[in-house]
Amino acid sequence: MMSSLTRAVCVVSLLINLCFFNFIFIRRQGALTWTRKSAEEAEEVASIDCSGHGTAFLDGALSNGGKPVCECSLCYGGPYCSEILPDCPANADGGDPLFLQPYWIQNAATSAVTVSGWHRMSYSFVKSSMLSDELVRQIQKLHETVGNAVTDGKFIVFGVGSTQLLHAALYALSDDDRLSKPVNVVALAPYYSMYQEHGTMFNTRNFEWQGDVSLWKNISNNSTSKSFIEIVTSPNNPDSKLRQPILEGPFARIMYDHAYYWPHYSAIPAPANGDLMIFTLSKITGHAGSRFGWAIIKDADVFQRMVTYLQYNTLGLSHETQVRALELLKVVLEDEGKTLFEFGYKTIANRWEKLNKIVSASKYFSLQKLSPQYCNYFQDIHHPSPGYAWLKCEMEENKECHKVLEAAGISGRQGSSFGVEDRYVRLTLLRSDDDFNLLLQRLVSLVSKELVDTN
Amino acid sequence: MMSSLTRAVCVVSLLINLCFFNFIFIRRQGALTWTRKSAEEAEEVASIDCSGHGTAFLDGALSNGGKPVCECSLCYGGPYCSEILPDCPANADGGDPLFLQPYWIQNAATSAVTVSGWHRMSYSFVKSSMLSDELVRQIQKLHETVGNAVTDGKFIVFGVGSTQLLHAALYALSDDDRLSKPVNVVALAPYYSMYQEHGTMFNTRNFEWQGDVSLWKNISNNSTSKSFIEIVTSPNNPDSKLRQPILEGPFARIMYDHAYYWPHYSAIPAPANGDLMIFTLSKITGHAGSRFGWAIIKDADVFQRMVTYLQYNTLGLSHETQVRALELLKVVLEDEGKTLFEFGYKTIANRWEKLNKIVSASKYFSLQKLSPQYCNYFQDIHHPSPGYAWLKCEMEENKECHKVLEAAGISGRQGSSFGVEDRYVRLTLLRSDDDFNLLLQRLVSLVSKELVDTN
Repeated sequence: MMSSLTRAVCVVSLLINLCFFNFIFIRRQGALTWTRKSAEEAEEVASIDCSGHGTAFLDGALSNGGKPVCECSLCYGGPYCSEILPDCPANADGGDPLFLQPYWIQNAATSAVTVSGWHRMSYSFVKSSMLSDELVRQIQKLHETVGNAVTDGKFIVFGVGSTQLLHAALYALSDDDRLSKPVNVVALAPYYSMYQEHGTMFNTRNFEWQGDVSLWKNISNNSTSKSFIEIVTSPNNPDSKLRQPILEGPFARIMYDHAYYWPHYSAIPAPANGDLMIFTLSKITGHAGSRFGWAIIKDADVFQRMVTYLQYNTLGLSHETQVRALELLKVVLEDEGKTLFEFGYKTIANRWEKLNKIVSASKYFSLQKLSPQYCNYFQDIHHPSPGYAWLKCEMEENKECHKVLEAAGISGRQGSSFGVEDRYVRLTLLRSDDDFNLLLQRLVSLVSKELVDTN
Repeated sequence: MMSSLTRAVCVVSLLINLCFFNFIFIRRQGALTWTRKSAEEAEEVASIDCSGHGTAFLDGALSNGGKPVCECSLCYGGPYCSEILPDCPANADGGDPLFLQPYWIQNAATSAVTVSGWHRMSYSFVKSSMLSDELVRQIQKLHETVGNAVTDGKFIVFGVGSTQLLHAALYALSDDDRLSKPVNVVALAPYYSMYQEHGTMFNTRNFEWQGDVSLWKNISNNSTSKSFIEIVTSPNNPDSKLRQPILEGPFARIMYDHAYYWPHYSAIPAPANGDLMIFTLSKITGHAGSRFGWAIIKDADVFQRMVTYLQYNTLGLSHETQVRALELLKVVLEDEGKTLFEFGYKTIANRWEKLNKIVSASKYFSLQKLSPQYCNYFQDIHHPSPGYAWLKCEMEENKECHKVLEAAGISGRQGSSFGVEDRYVRLTLLRSDDDFNLLLQRLVSLVSKELVDTN
């Protein structure tokens, strides 16, 4: 009896050994060698618990124990971001697209990238190009899938964010013998605040910032002595409206900033087909810190001048960024963008609805009016989901709306940055849940106070 | 007997069970989860055999089997880079620092970086800075360790390669009310070919490229109506000489390009202590494709103007690049730079010796003269190890030296790019072994032909 039990144990034990052996020596053929350390480091950092109100990063400041510390949301503090900071202003300024961070945490396994120490050390890729051909192909596929831009027969160039591309495009378009210098750079107000800084900063003889296009419309169409570059932002930043150019004729060049022309923020009624269109990774995947943008260009000469500008300005752009952008876009395209765009759209539409509900209870404030529109990408009605709320102070005396908000603990960007009155303020809907929830909370207090005051 | 054998087997098997159990469940607590896929992908790509004459990259073009293909050294071809391409010119142009790739392959485990999908998506790091504080600290430590630059009490700013920083520095220095505009940008010939392109490309009212400083020396010292920025490249590109400024006085600003002031290329006699000094990752670790440089600046106003320039030009720089640069510099500093600088120095000094031996057999050609010098970093005599050979065609009739080389299957960069006669050609010593060995081979043929001709 004893012996047969021993025998049975022995057989089971041998079988278990066989399983373990198989597991360790056969299945472990794919075991990691030189990547293990970096993978372990990444997982260790990711496992640091920041209470859902912060993140630890590989290159963060180190604690005394030598581990990266939690970097907290703006209004949270303490070593694990568990403490709410009192009287902390709700940040609704800037365009940091942090609302997409949860999407990438959900897709951790597919979106990680391991870069070897010898990855693409050269200045160039194959054929002396500064661009990853695979990334160009992925971007073409992305636009085809989303249906938001025509890339067929056009050139693609990359830049250090759309910021650099805007600048490169101003040079490329203005450096044209048919245009008198300096070329006037204009945009319809309210316009993105950076254009003015771009237009004036570098003190070039080629072009000059002239502000609101409305002031120039009649002159430009009848004049041969003045030439123009009109920047058309569609959807517009700050008010999210889809836009068309105002200027036309042989001395007007149009540059389209399509940063927000993605299903997160806008219905996609048709593919954009401008001669020079600029997009940025920042607003599709949320990776603002990667500094990656691309331009789609019809004219070969303009393309060549942009390439030359980018070559002299920065000699191409980060190869680390290019390989990561490729991996991120692969994740997006795995299901034709479905999960990313649905996540983004639902998040922003939901935020907009909440904000609207609060503001509509007020007589002191109003928001831009946006209508539902059919979206070719979702093949459905797209409810408004703007990247920014364009808030107006309705009361005659509130000429400086940002000050009214500041007093209520909300920091936004004032209207004059966008070429209009300070009666307007831009509030972002793109930041983290922490920041947005605080904004809602502060707005509720502000509007409640108004209701109490008026009763 | 049978039973005791069974029992023994059983005990041994159970003990082995215990070991396996321990190995799999106890030691595997550190098992990888979300990083595993990216680590496996990286290792798979690295395992692609390119015959020692090429590399496969994560973002390379894909074969029919869906794996990245080998990207071959310039004069190798075939699917595994095993075929020598006939009549392929030896590339000795450009400054691609591929000679350092083997160092990073040797240090694969410590230099890999795994980047999560949600790594630093924001525009900024903590405190709204565009720079990684940890990377700033690492750079300060690096300069202190090598003894090649004083960083105490100075500001540090990052750029998209030293290329962007050169440009940012021209703006920051010229945007000074005490200087008359346009400020004249000058450098001592032979000077780095890009300065001219930087100085003229952007057509700014702030500064103007004026070429060789020698032409201006007397004027500048006596003149109050003209102001200058002198770019001092030390060690100089192309001839690797250590340099001092030519200009002085209240209307001269000096910008130091110290790209090559590392023990690979030069003795380090003393720490550099200029008011504005520019360095680049490209020439210390060999990661040209990362586009990462830094400037060390004494004056707070100049620093602030550079920050503003960089903000408007590209809104900071890639966070992927910053985390990788940090990891790479950590590897370098693990042994205080010893293995990297010895590898780099030995490689280049050895190349220089071989090249010198070949050229010294010729009456038609000569190289720049360089002397051994005491190096504070190595605490030893540093034999010449210049990044570039500055070749001269000695024969009266060979006024276009690059054409003589081209005819012999060697492509270099002609003297006129550096502001001097085309009797000079710059040949790089920085490329891969494949490229350098081919250059030697072609030079041997060229010089042998001369010896046959003259006998």
